[in-house]
Amino acid sequence: MGTAWTTSDGGVTAPVGFEAGAVNCGIRSEKPDVALLLSDRDAVLAGTFTSNRLAAAPVALCRERVATGVGRAVIINSGNANAATGAQGRVDADRMAQLTAEALGLAPGGVCVCSTGTIGVPMPMDKVEAGIKDVAGALSPDGGAAAARAIMTTDLVPKEIALELEIDGKPVRIGGMAKGSGMIDPNMATMLAYVTTDAAVEGAALQDMLRDAVQDSFNRITVDGDESTNDTVLMLANGAAGNTPLQPDHADWSLFVQAVRDVCGQLARMIVKDGEGATKFVTVTVRGAKNDAEARQAARAIANSMLVKTSWFGCDPNWGRIYDAVGYAGVKVDADTIEIKLDDFVAVSNGTVAGQTDLKSLEAVLQQDEFTVLVDLHLGNGRDTVYTCDCSYDYVRINSEYTT
Amino acid sequence: MGTAWTTSDGGVTAPVGFEAGAVNCGIRSEKPDVALLLSDRDAVLAGTFTSNRLAAAPVALCRERVATGVGRAVIINSGNANAATGAQGRVDADRMAQLTAEALGLAPGGVCVCSTGTIGVPMPMDKVEAGIKDVAGALSPDGGAAAARAIMTTDLVPKEIALELEIDGKPVRIGGMAKGSGMIDPNMATMLAYVTTDAAVEGAALQDMLRDAVQDSFNRITVDGDESTNDTVLMLANGAAGNTPLQPDHADWSLFVQAVRDVCGQLARMIVKDGEGATKFVTVTVRGAKNDAEARQAARAIANSMLVKTSWFGCDPNWGRIYDAVGYAGVKVDADTIEIKLDDFVAVSNGTVAGQTDLKSLEAVLQQDEFTVLVDLHLGNGRDTVYTCDCSYDYVRINSEYTT
Repeated sequence: MGTAWTTSDGGVTAPVGFEAGAVNCGIRSEKPDVALLLSDRDAVLAGTFTSNRLAAAPVALCRERVATGVGRAVIINSGNANAATGAQGRVDADRMAQLTAEALGLAPGGVCVCSTGTIGVPMPMDKVEAGIKDVAGALSPDGGAAAARAIMTTDLVPKEIALELEIDGKPVRIGGMAKGSGMIDPNMATMLAYVTTDAAVEGAALQDMLRDAVQDSFNRITVDGDESTNDTVLMLANGAAGNTPLQPDHADWSLFVQAVRDVCGQLARMIVKDGEGATKFVTVTVRGAKNDAEARQAARAIANSMLVKTSWFGCDPNWGRIYDAVGYAGVKVDADTIEIKLDDFVAVSNGTVAGQTDLKSLEAVLQQDEFTVLVDLHLGNGRDTVYTCDCSYDYVRINSEYTT
Repeated sequence: MGTAWTTSDGGVTAPVGFEAGAVNCGIRSEKPDVALLLSDRDAVLAGTFTSNRLAAAPVALCRERVATGVGRAVIINSGNANAATGAQGRVDADRMAQLTAEALGLAPGGVCVCSTGTIGVPMPMDKVEAGIKDVAGALSPDGGAAAARAIMTTDLVPKEIALELEIDGKPVRIGGMAKGSGMIDPNMATMLAYVTTDAAVEGAALQDMLRDAVQDSFNRITVDGDESTNDTVLMLANGAAGNTPLQPDHADWSLFVQAVRDVCGQLARMIVKDGEGATKFVTVTVRGAKNDAEARQAARAIANSMLVKTSWFGCDPNWGRIYDAVGYAGVKVDADTIEIKLDDFVAVSNGTVAGQTDLKSLEAVLQQDEFTVLVDLHLGNGRDTVYTCDCSYDYVRINSEYTT
């Protein structure tokens, strides 16, 4: 049984058998806006999607592809979300799959389509058609970095990661890329992430594992509480490493799962750190709740409170706002038992101000780039953690500048 | 039966038999921070309170007073919320009622106590004690305006209103004052409102009517979605007008109810217009929802979306963010039927961009100080409206400046 993994350079093309590429087709600007990811053989495909009930057309397409369990390629555009585009939106998404399949000599059923950008603008299909033809000629085994840049919108930095580990004594690689934080033409912070591996993995196991990994990574982050119409995580496992297909009975299953969780967790943190206007990375943990669901509800109330987030930006140890958010979160609380800690410093114990900690210590915690807020309700065993950022002037600037 | 009412000058002391006063006792600064409202006879008392589960000590006290149905006076301080103050908080609130009762020669059971300000700081009872003694000597039949100023925190303007109408052919007055938007020492936007009337009103009827009026006014406003630990609305009806006590069978009941609703509605609008950093007043209506509750849920998701609020600030007709918020609100939606209007201009029809309205028209709507967002889901008869404001740099400034 393997014991650990190492980080390597690269992203989605680090695993054997994956190529990627990127071009500009002029959807919004001159930045690369079309990315293509290709596996040289059928890959086991898994995916998780936004729960927004007005999910975009390409999300509907990807759901169908994931249901087949097999995929070869993903075509991704930035600059236009293909959301709120009615029946034409689905026609255009299908056409993107068709054009990609033709350019690569594949069946369209093997092609996933993702879009991120402005809502409610018809896809400029003439530009997209040219872009798809171009990007098919731009594929390279080193193309992961270019793809990671092409899917960016208001992201300030590309987000990629690659790990190596050993399965059945064979080297296996896992790569990933993600985008998220907002848009040059702001709409909402669509989150897209792609994980590749050359490990062989059994289909249902891959889907279950991805769902759990996403739950504990991408679903734990929040920048502003606005869930996009386009959020998508896709994972392709092409088996090029030649291992016995992984599933829960495999001796190295747990190692592989932990490595994938690490990839998802690191990509998720990269998104928060690059959150619109973010200056601080904050881990919010609620424990001692009635159950995990209530812990999550309270942690999200804190993490999405504009009053809390602006106080973090101002380095103001204003724990009263955290206390207030817990109170309106709709969870079981007892005013006499609630405890609030900022890093190692107790701000509140037994529901009221803790005498032993001075404000200067709390202020010093908030002046860091990263810190932890811990709320212990002392009522039960429920526990959950979310990752978030502060809210600065730049959040307002980025999202209020006239751009439509 | 009366037909209408007229607006008059003044606020809570406009009705016969009410006096008010205000002084500074130095809780936080030199601005007036203690207000007292007194009825010269027992008044029928009604109230509604925050649903925050960590409600402050004075809220617990007021709930008990409202349960008795009778009150004489309300003592209010700004600068300290007496929240997260443990058992001592309730001792201090009781002491404030006792001190007020002694100064006025009343029983403490007739005195309500309200606090707004910093959370988690013990009440400076020496200062408060002196303030209560002083304010009892500052009462005046014209003191409403002074009280309206003393309850302010980060409010930029005092909020008061008075109406006159006829009941049983006798003149009846209704007065009101409110505070809310944030705090100089920011915690959260505690909302306090007081409505007085010299009408005689039957107790249970007053409570039911107030609950409904609050539901359709104060409970429809949102600045940032953070519900305070201290929100309180109290109404005192002292019967000085000499009418037959009002209750639902009274011929003028409906007139009286409408007038009280007008008072609550106008005070609520004043709070939104004075919202922290607000530059625009926005009415968000959702109709065609499965039911009223879902309409409310969708309207609140729109009104509390930071992405939506910042786009309003930027005068960006970015309806995609409204569309997105409806999608994640957790209500029944159909992507093919949703319609979005900004004032009279259709932005979205049948779930996609409406061709007949140009962006310039939508932009002109957002450049106004007040406008309406209407979302019609075209699925049912559910309908609700909330009132909110945009989110500007000043919101971040007010709430991030170091002040603890």
